[in-house]
Amino acid sequence: GSQKERSNHKTTKEFSSFLSSPRFPPIMSPVTATLLRHRLRHLRHQIRLNSTSVSPPPPHFNLPLNHPTYLIWSANTSLGKTLVSTGIAASFLLQQPSSSPPAAHSTKLLYLKPIQTGFPTDSDSRFVFSKLDSLSLRRRIPLSISNSVLRSSLPVAESMRRSLKVSESGMCDLNFSEEKTVTGAPELLCKTLYAWDAAISPHLAAEREHATVEDSVVLKMVEQEMECGSQTNVLCLVETAGGVASPGPSGTLQCDLYRPFRLPGILVGDGRLGGISGTISAYESLKLRGYDVAAVVFEDHGLVNEVPLNSYLRNKVPVLVLPPVPKDPSDDLIEWFVESDGVFKALKEVMVSVYLERVERLNGMAKQAGEVFWWPFTQHKLVPEDNVTVIDSRCGENFSIYKASGDNSITQQFDACASWWTQGPDPAFQAELAREMGYTAARFGHIMFPENVYEPALKCAELLLDGVGKGWASRVYFSDNGSTAIEISLKMAFRKFCVDHETLLSLSEDAEEKKHVDVKVLALRGSYHGDTLGAMEAQAPSPYTGFLQQPWYTGRGLFLDPPTVFISNGAWNLSLPESFPQTASEESGTFTTRDEIFDKSRDTSTLATIYSASVSEQLQEYSESSQSAHVGALIIEPVIHGAGGMHMVDPLFQRVLVNECRNRKIPVIFDEVFTGFWRLGVETTADLLGCKPDIACFAKLLTGGMIPLAVTLATDAVFDSFSGDSKLKALLHGHSYSAHAMGCATAAKAIEWFKDPETNHNIDSQRGTLRELWDEELVLQISSHCAVERVVVLGTLFALELKVCFLVRKVPSRDAPGRRYFHAPSGKRCIPHEWPLHVAGDLPPVAR
Amino acid sequence: GSQKERSNHKTTKEFSSFLSSPRFPPIMSPVTATLLRHRLRHLRHQIRLNSTSVSPPPPHFNLPLNHPTYLIWSANTSLGKTLVSTGIAASFLLQQPSSSPPAAHSTKLLYLKPIQTGFPTDSDSRFVFSKLDSLSLRRRIPLSISNSVLRSSLPVAESMRRSLKVSESGMCDLNFSEEKTVTGAPELLCKTLYAWDAAISPHLAAEREHATVEDSVVLKMVEQEMECGSQTNVLCLVETAGGVASPGPSGTLQCDLYRPFRLPGILVGDGRLGGISGTISAYESLKLRGYDVAAVVFEDHGLVNEVPLNSYLRNKVPVLVLPPVPKDPSDDLIEWFVESDGVFKALKEVMVSVYLERVERLNGMAKQAGEVFWWPFTQHKLVPEDNVTVIDSRCGENFSIYKASGDNSITQQFDACASWWTQGPDPAFQAELAREMGYTAARFGHIMFPENVYEPALKCAELLLDGVGKGWASRVYFSDNGSTAIEISLKMAFRKFCVDHETLLSLSEDAEEKKHVDVKVLALRGSYHGDTLGAMEAQAPSPYTGFLQQPWYTGRGLFLDPPTVFISNGAWNLSLPESFPQTASEESGTFTTRDEIFDKSRDTSTLATIYSASVSEQLQEYSESSQSAHVGALIIEPVIHGAGGMHMVDPLFQRVLVNECRNRKIPVIFDEVFTGFWRLGVETTADLLGCKPDIACFAKLLTGGMIPLAVTLATDAVFDSFSGDSKLKALLHGHSYSAHAMGCATAAKAIEWFKDPETNHNIDSQRGTLRELWDEELVLQISSHCAVERVVVLGTLFALELKVCFLVRKVPSRDAPGRRYFHAPSGKRCIPHEWPLHVAGDLPPVAR
Repeated sequence: GSQKERSNHKTTKEFSSFLSSPRFPPIMSPVTATLLRHRLRHLRHQIRLNSTSVSPPPPHFNLPLNHPTYLIWSANTSLGKTLVSTGIAASFLLQQPSSSPPAAHSTKLLYLKPIQTGFPTDSDSRFVFSKLDSLSLRRRIPLSISNSVLRSSLPVAESMRRSLKVSESGMCDLNFSEEKTVTGAPELLCKTLYAWDAAISPHLAAEREHATVEDSVVLKMVEQEMECGSQTNVLCLVETAGGVASPGPSGTLQCDLYRPFRLPGILVGDGRLGGISGTISAYESLKLRGYDVAAVVFEDHGLVNEVPLNSYLRNKVPVLVLPPVPKDPSDDLIEWFVESDGVFKALKEVMVSVYLERVERLNGMAKQAGEVFWWPFTQHKLVPEDNVTVIDSRCGENFSIYKASGDNSITQQFDACASWWTQGPDPAFQAELAREMGYTAARFGHIMFPENVYEPALKCAELLLDGVGKGWASRVYFSDNGSTAIEISLKMAFRKFCVDHETLLSLSEDAEEKKHVDVKVLALRGSYHGDTLGAMEAQAPSPYTGFLQQPWYTGRGLFLDPPTVFISNGAWNLSLPESFPQTASEESGTFTTRDEIFDKSRDTSTLATIYSASVSEQLQEYSESSQSAHVGALIIEPVIHGAGGMHMVDPLFQRVLVNECRNRKIPVIFDEVFTGFWRLGVETTADLLGCKPDIACFAKLLTGGMIPLAVTLATDAVFDSFSGDSKLKALLHGHSYSAHAMGCATAAKAIEWFKDPETNHNIDSQRGTLRELWDEELVLQISSHCAVERVVVLGTLFALELKVCFLVRKVPSRDAPGRRYFHAPSGKRCIPHEWPLHVAGDLPPVAR
Repeated sequence: GSQKERSNHKTTKEFSSFLSSPRFPPIMSPVTATLLRHRLRHLRHQIRLNSTSVSPPPPHFNLPLNHPTYLIWSANTSLGKTLVSTGIAASFLLQQPSSSPPAAHSTKLLYLKPIQTGFPTDSDSRFVFSKLDSLSLRRRIPLSISNSVLRSSLPVAESMRRSLKVSESGMCDLNFSEEKTVTGAPELLCKTLYAWDAAISPHLAAEREHATVEDSVVLKMVEQEMECGSQTNVLCLVETAGGVASPGPSGTLQCDLYRPFRLPGILVGDGRLGGISGTISAYESLKLRGYDVAAVVFEDHGLVNEVPLNSYLRNKVPVLVLPPVPKDPSDDLIEWFVESDGVFKALKEVMVSVYLERVERLNGMAKQAGEVFWWPFTQHKLVPEDNVTVIDSRCGENFSIYKASGDNSITQQFDACASWWTQGPDPAFQAELAREMGYTAARFGHIMFPENVYEPALKCAELLLDGVGKGWASRVYFSDNGSTAIEISLKMAFRKFCVDHETLLSLSEDAEEKKHVDVKVLALRGSYHGDTLGAMEAQAPSPYTGFLQQPWYTGRGLFLDPPTVFISNGAWNLSLPESFPQTASEESGTFTTRDEIFDKSRDTSTLATIYSASVSEQLQEYSESSQSAHVGALIIEPVIHGAGGMHMVDPLFQRVLVNECRNRKIPVIFDEVFTGFWRLGVETTADLLGCKPDIACFAKLLTGGMIPLAVTLATDAVFDSFSGDSKLKALLHGHSYSAHAMGCATAAKAIEWFKDPETNHNIDSQRGTLRELWDEELVLQISSHCAVERVVVLGTLFALELKVCFLVRKVPSRDAPGRRYFHAPSGKRCIPHEWPLHVAGDLPPVAR
């Protein structure tokens, strides 16, 4: 064992007996239960292992789908995975010529054992190789066979008396191989990709033999070796090591390691006493990672385990039972394979038919989608079938998409759309959220909300008030999405306004009289607050609010033109709207850094006075225009107008606006649906803006990009304006799934995950903000490009607007890898709310 | 083995070799993959087992929380669950007097083994009993100990030479017991509840020994035996049998069997090779059923399995390692227990502190909730802290709620609220949905929708168009809740109307001109369509639409008074609104049966003519009232006005209304948010009404009561009215989580589950409707009670309105069991949208 291994062992051992450990000074005794828990927490941090750190994201891959490929999983070690692989191989390769016409194309089975420990004593690929050799002789069906071992640890190489160059990771290119060729015969290719000497778990063997391999390297290797060209009569088996959740060489559990491929699986179950439990749990671990299992197969031990298994699986996954395996170690198992032939034939047929059904479904999906879906924000007439993305799954930020055209394969694609709006969690977080979802559904299902409390809702509310609402909010109102959160915030603000201005409004009980009071919002032109009517009414007219979209829209607001800031020609610029007095334009100009824009010292600048005067004047003008018209709420998207075109509003202007409204007792709403939860580098944009709202709305990233949930936060003063002796004074707004447990649980998880430097490596733990994610110099360079109109960079946001002349050709919706564009919807040319087409880490070609 | 067992075995065996089975006639060969799959499906039905049928719901229980109780789980058999129980017991009972002052109250450990097979050779309760006896002697700490075995199979009773009466289920009251009492000493009570002779899985033993026991009986027994009075220094251990997912005596997996109690657990893991995988999978199976695991503990086999386990658990659950257990069978393990004392002490402390934290949290939740939540539809001033329901979990239709007052316990309560709106799934379906949620989150997370396709969305859309949309709908528009679905439906309808009436509206490109066109909805007074502004505008004025709720509401509709039907005084009555001509009242009267009301032959009745004339007249009057006013859509809740007070509208009137609108090319919207998906006994109310809409909205039950999702279905003609060369003509409405995978996956599952007579036993498979759920005679009786104003009974709905005089006292919000009311919100007295207080299966006391 290495030094590292021993030290791990020691630390964990200490943990189990820490109560008597001298590391805890006597002053902490006697140990109370609470203290103990604190100690546990403390200790937990200490023993946090490096192996828990996130490994680099796997490279984008390409999985051919022109033949079936299966992962062979097992509920535990030694349940006969390799026997099953061998049986499938025999059934696939050694068909009686009578049962099917001689194949025009060659038949090939590819058997991969990516991870092999205990080598060479244990070599599963050699087992398959030699058994197929024997079976081919016995059945008198010729077969070409080969077995090779590609890489190994040094001890393996030494035991095989090979002297090889050891790579940095400690692995050797062993390149051992043996073969028997029969021209024209079906072909068996067996390959062990990585081999270690010790017969222990791969993560221990890798450590002991100083021969590690990164997850991404294993995946890349498997991907390469799975490639079989365009031959059609091929079956590929990838046999895992140990149980489904046994660690791979890096320590990543194998079910997590292979997750990006999401290959369908065969689960080798356990027919022994207790085997029902192990088989079901293993099955659940696979499903909980998004795998499909085509069949369960196990050795009969006379306990009829298939009965409860079939019952559990509701007969939707076939359960196959193999005859008992001879116990005599000298038995060559050939008779057993003969006896098992029927079961393996059935298994093979299931594998082929599940594969064919999957491909058939994938092939039909784009067409089907075009016939039954009505996509949001989509002119269907402009979406040809070829343009429909067929998504097989997601792993973290990447989709696995199916491409029928050309090579008929599953490839990975970065999820650009979510990167703007809902963010894709990384694979580790996705797996964590999936477990949380399963747990929450099982524990709570859904609970309707009024007058009760349950852990996820309470925890979520506590985290919100201690996070984005800290220092001002004291109440959380749950709803389902950004639009409903906005509708609720307007109801809150108007009520608060009515209560504060009761005399002014002379609100009597007479409903008729009230109808003459015209309450409006104060909002900025270009801001966007959602698609339900109430949210629409709070925004200025735009293509989304036209008569043909919703004839009821009237635009119930006083809409101001905001000054904006952006980078162009290598500097931050301020642009004042035309409505401002001529004299103000002298104040517009450039900033050296972005920090300067957010500097609170600007509050005393001439520009602040100009802003203030302008706002005052417009409010004055409006209130004079009609006796019945009142501004009852201010609603803003702080700092960035998201869907409206990724425009950055001068934060000084918004701060002045907030203050002017405060002075007039007009409630202030921050619409943080887009900007909240780290989108702009801070948990709440209120921190960036330097002032607090009375009401704020959050959604989108709130749940880490998993599931709809929205909240409207409010101050005590707003809450109190709904207090009274009558239920009619309460806020009568709700949805059946308000504060649903699933949403609250994921939100609580996401809030903690994004905030914690241990799980979010982009958090600057000193400042409590995100690190700067964009290279400043490069950004300035891009902004100087002749094709670039403007750039906005803040937090996770990089928005680039091309000049009109460069937008003549519509950017094709899916580009070849390596040709990607930064592309934010342009406020000028595109429909501003258009779903963005491209975001990626590459440089836009235009800027090169 | 019994006949049944052998036949099961045989059937499943056949399954594994069915390809060569003579049961398939030769005409079906050669077997193609597709055919094979069909055969599989066919066969699956044949081998569907009785054991999969749902067992009766567990009785409501009461779990005391004044001491910790833990389930002892294991990743597999023979991993030392009983050693762990013994160690915990020793650590709890055999404290050195020096380390803690002599307890004023007695210390007691209760060890329960509900299910024991292999008895009496294997008796875990006897093992704990005898080891504690030895350890007490060795440590010289006096102990009172007892061991008893309550019930057993006949073979067990015979082997113990007892002749006992065998009950119907085959179990005997064995009542064996042994004890050693030391006055004032700590106490150990060991109990085996049910024992079988064969050392096999309980479900097999129960079958072979003809001694079965229902799940609910096991639970009741465990509940009784866990009761320890008000003693405080008590620890209770309930040790399971086999692995976490090993079947119990009825065949139900133990993790499902004990789920209603949701006791916290200790997981005994596996320290052997392959044990990491088994331990993690077992842990996941527990979490996937909503259990909390306080600690993982396992025997050291020198493989450092705790390292990857700690890494997986992110150090949030302690992992404790026990020293290797001596292999020598003659070893009495006493030395081992001494050696393990530190680990068990730590484990015990964790158990106590996790328990204390849980109770502390539960105690504080009601207060916390009152301070941070802003509940929907709730006047907070009227909700005292005592009234807040603290919900620990849900199992199917029941909550587990925490009651701090009095006995400090977890009790079960029927979820009346969900029974009106979102329905609680049964425990089996909840578990199934939880697995589906975990799988979907892991496979897809969330996928933003435009221009792509993924399985859950496609499958959900297909099921909708083949189900509730069958025969008319061809497009599915996804959104997040009923309100948004309604907003979308209005946008669709208005567009269709505008396209159909282009000339009439003389819609030019001039936006100013359009503003003079006043498009309204036609709706029924008393219908309710949601809380966002657009949905509010489509309903008649009510307490929810007042100026103080939303000053923007104007009520953009022509609202008609509908005729209603209801049962009173033992008969179905028709009540016409006052607005109808005097002559019409002659037509109102009674119906003999409900079917008569839905009879299509009424279309040719005089009343139909009266309805038609009335609708025509009102439409005519309205269109004459203003040149610019147009009715652009009809929106109705078919048959039942849900939130508006559970009023049943005469279906003939709604059918006439639909026809009148059709004749005028006014698009028809069915708001099936409340009525859809079997609420009224049919999947879609369109079937009940006997006519089809152009657009329909669904939500609530769509996802089986789990998670928010809504859909708006539309005809091709409606869809086509958005087609054009410009994106501006598209329906520009969407939410970030439109068609989220989680919602679509649960919806697909729920649609299938509710429809399938195999999973929904209330489906009348012949008629494709729900069976009649209410006793007709009883309903008529109730309606004749002097306190009853009206009753409406349809599908799952039983709504009862009390007469005003009986509503003076507000029904207390949580009643003692056995004193429940059927109580639908009254349209007259209560605020109609009030969350209903009570629904249950018992008879209302007033009607007795």
